[in-house]
Amino acid sequence: MTRPFATEDFRRRMARASRQAADAGLSGLLVTPGPDLLYFTGYAPIAITERITLLAIATEREPAMIVPILERSDAEICPAADAIAFSDWTDGDDPYAATAALMDPDGRYAISDSAWAMHVLGLQAALPESSYVSMTTALPMLRAVKDADEIERLTAAGAAADACLEELVGVRFAGRRETEIAADLAALLRKHGHSQVDFTVVGSGPNGANPHHEMGERMIEEGDMVVLDFGGIKDGYGSDTTRTVHVGPPTEEEREVFEIVRRAQQAGFDAVRPGVACQEIDRAARKVIADAGYGEYFIHRVGHGIGTTTHEPPYMIEGEEHPIEPGMCFSIEPGIYLPGRFGVRIEDIVVATEDGGLRLNNTDRGMRIVS
Amino acid sequence: MTRPFATEDFRRRMARASRQAADAGLSGLLVTPGPDLLYFTGYAPIAITERITLLAIATEREPAMIVPILERSDAEICPAADAIAFSDWTDGDDPYAATAALMDPDGRYAISDSAWAMHVLGLQAALPESSYVSMTTALPMLRAVKDADEIERLTAAGAAADACLEELVGVRFAGRRETEIAADLAALLRKHGHSQVDFTVVGSGPNGANPHHEMGERMIEEGDMVVLDFGGIKDGYGSDTTRTVHVGPPTEEEREVFEIVRRAQQAGFDAVRPGVACQEIDRAARKVIADAGYGEYFIHRVGHGIGTTTHEPPYMIEGEEHPIEPGMCFSIEPGIYLPGRFGVRIEDIVVATEDGGLRLNNTDRGMRIVS
Repeated sequence: MTRPFATEDFRRRMARASRQAADAGLSGLLVTPGPDLLYFTGYAPIAITERITLLAIATEREPAMIVPILERSDAEICPAADAIAFSDWTDGDDPYAATAALMDPDGRYAISDSAWAMHVLGLQAALPESSYVSMTTALPMLRAVKDADEIERLTAAGAAADACLEELVGVRFAGRRETEIAADLAALLRKHGHSQVDFTVVGSGPNGANPHHEMGERMIEEGDMVVLDFGGIKDGYGSDTTRTVHVGPPTEEEREVFEIVRRAQQAGFDAVRPGVACQEIDRAARKVIADAGYGEYFIHRVGHGIGTTTHEPPYMIEGEEHPIEPGMCFSIEPGIYLPGRFGVRIEDIVVATEDGGLRLNNTDRGMRIVS
Repeated sequence: MTRPFATEDFRRRMARASRQAADAGLSGLLVTPGPDLLYFTGYAPIAITERITLLAIATEREPAMIVPILERSDAEICPAADAIAFSDWTDGDDPYAATAALMDPDGRYAISDSAWAMHVLGLQAALPESSYVSMTTALPMLRAVKDADEIERLTAAGAAADACLEELVGVRFAGRRETEIAADLAALLRKHGHSQVDFTVVGSGPNGANPHHEMGERMIEEGDMVVLDFGGIKDGYGSDTTRTVHVGPPTEEEREVFEIVRRAQQAGFDAVRPGVACQEIDRAARKVIADAGYGEYFIHRVGHGIGTTTHEPPYMIEGEEHPIEPGMCFSIEPGIYLPGRFGVRIEDIVVATEDGGLRLNNTDRGMRIVS
């Protein structure tokens, strides 16, 4: 069993964030419900609504959280509660005036990416001298470096996803709809300990050439390439892996395209080491595909971070110059998408260590033939 | 079967919104994924992520939607596609520069409440002369007046929720956990046609005194008052109803408190007619509770609108002076919460007509005794 995060873990995270904010010339962080709030406090309101909940973390003050009065009793029992001063507001109050009491009137704040526009506009109006920048713009690497307890959870989530794939390749594909395989995947993720299923992509034949196709009513046939990309949340941390399987024997061209993607994924992985810019991971994988003449068919970045969400910094993308640091966890997932024909993608979650990358997904990366 | 919404429905909604924006002195509306986008286009991306998708509706231009290139093929088949000019952006581009191309550089825009802060901050930076106000602040009643096709869907959702309640009161309560009753409720909502379960509140005994308690491991006992508040989405539109039941015979005090809430709910309902300010619905219900000496135990607004979400304007709350208009649909849900003891809440969805209110929930509002 993994050790539950305790008040001290959250206190340490908030203190580190406060120092990072000060180093970046910010007055502090404004954290709203979602992955940031979960990371700093373990607290997730029942629903994210138009009623503002906000945690203010600043160097000179104790962390303070304002919540709708209706939700105060829930918030006060969150795992980080002992490290937080709580206040509340009531329907009919001006929630932004109440929230402004936690802030410096002319402060500059990093605010959670997914904070509602109505809240940031409300705070701008309540404190006209204040200014804001999104968390990812100001402190992109805030949650990017995982500690040992987090890596333990990500490792377990990755192993669970691998177990799903191993069970899935044994099922019948030909003659079943993508939606049926996707339902199998969702059930497997839950069976293997996931509390939340985020995506179950089943892209068969031409559907595999649309990298964001999730699933449809298409009947899978002998001869199809099938992209399987799935993940979710297990014990608070994410899984995300992709394997591309083939129903029956592939053509020579399918084998070739598959091999290019496999080599690209390996090249991205081999490029991982501390100090290397994130964009170099993208470049290394992309170069293999471009050199093989398929550059125009690889239309997305190579990877994204993973933690309390299945999509977060650091991004492995051209232009991201931030260096890889030990403890960063992210996907490496190049693909080739031939419109109207088929697609191939191979994805592992990788954790950066002092010595290079360590894969958290370890199923066979060769082409698996399914029936 | 209800008629599916067609391009013309969406075109009409966008044209009306554009006129409302012009009347409010705005350059237009910026609509991001969620209930606003669903309302205007029928389009819901697979996931709402850090990648911006935005629909711009302005008087002088054709509605225009920018999407991540990965999602373009999905967006282009949405029901409103024929009424929209599409563009896209690719990972590595500046998404805000690309989005700004749909906007006036010095325009004033209403933006969806739940648009991500990072997007509104990105647009502010890309167009320093532009300005923004939240949709609910600028055009609170944008989606508030429902047309006949929408009311048909809300009526069906309400009837389905009522059917759930009628089945639920026949099950055993005593000796079962709140979580078990909540699971029954979720299954019933799905059985009765809901595609999405938004909440299944089961507040037994003292838990009923916390109006936002959802459910817990508490074992329900003979003598408990139990608040049941549940709803979700059926055919794109919401349901939301609350009944409070009692396990075995109630005490005299429980009967009294229940009757006060029942009378308050009736008073709120009786106050509904076109031209009356929304706050008068709140006041009418609240007065009954205050006059009975329980004013301090009623700690939330009386109601909220419902449509493509289960929580939207118009709000029945002190300070909301907007007049009720025929076609508005909203909850009336007063309650009394006695800390550590029990709570009572009664809630119906009500549609305003020319003649007054029409309830979309019609199960018995008296105290039902369960076993």
